[in-house]
Amino acid sequence: MTERIHAIQDDYPDDIAWCFGCGRLNENGYHFRTYWNGYQTETTYEPKKEHIAIPGFVYGGLIGALVDCHGTGSASLALHRKNGFEPGSGEEPPRFVTGSLHVDFLKPTPQNVILKAVGTVEEIHPKKWKVNVEVFAGESLCAKGEVIAVVMPSSFTK
Amino acid sequence: MTERIHAIQDDYPDDIAWCFGCGRLNENGYHFRTYWNGYQTETTYEPKKEHIAIPGFVYGGLIGALVDCHGTGSASLALHRKNGFEPGSGEEPPRFVTGSLHVDFLKPTPQNVILKAVGTVEEIHPKKWKVNVEVFAGESLCAKGEVIAVVMPSSFTK
Repeated sequence: MTERIHAIQDDYPDDIAWCFGCGRLNENGYHFRTYWNGYQTETTYEPKKEHIAIPGFVYGGLIGALVDCHGTGSASLALHRKNGFEPGSGEEPPRFVTGSLHVDFLKPTPQNVILKAVGTVEEIHPKKWKVNVEVFAGESLCAKGEVIAVVMPSSFTK
Repeated sequence: MTERIHAIQDDYPDDIAWCFGCGRLNENGYHFRTYWNGYQTETTYEPKKEHIAIPGFVYGGLIGALVDCHGTGSASLALHRKNGFEPGSGEEPPRFVTGSLHVDFLKPTPQNVILKAVGTVEEIHPKKWKVNVEVFAGESLCAKGEVIAVVMPSSFTK
């Protein structure tokens, strides 16, 4: 029996838990879940059979979506930790939006392999965090990304 | 009765028409279609109800996917035109893959509005094209993107 690691998205309040990429309440979404692995962050995802660019290779748009949500989730984890909290601690985490997304596709990403996004987070402004992301298919580094994540303005949910 | 504009994806050979974003044969995909509007390129898409970031606003990962496929489709249109052909001319168009994808999210993108990606294409190398993309929700410019598209290596489909 393996324990399910507590992800930051498990703690988002219900009204902002609908993201197609990482919202636990979006029935049709990807349900990306982002958590700490030491001082780096991780999100894993197994693409569905339809998520192809050409037969045998994963669709780049899915990798972009993974990098995007992994970036905002990682920033949330990092600011939450800076504030003294960890996922599962019962405190509501800060929610981020994407300011910019960049992905370099290094090589074709094979289908039928679990993808793992690994993030390194850096504060560049009190409300703005940079997340460098590496996307692996198994052991193979297939894409590198960078997300600038910005604390969600409170007006978004009004 | 409105005539359906011929898109570059209509002319991709069957074996590379499976892209989740823009493949006409992928039953579960977005079916993005990219065509000329004068010297610029266009792709329109109406997000589905589940494609939200938070209720009322479109998911950034979908916008990234739109920019991505619009970029490769626009590069294909441009090289095809350089070679003397237009969509529907009966010639097989060149197929591109994404080298890099960049998106700046300028403002929240409202749900329930048709998105339009507008592309400007520039050849930067015989096998590499840069596509600048603007994404509008109605009249509102919501995101800007840049795609470096690379001619698909023939090894991809072997």
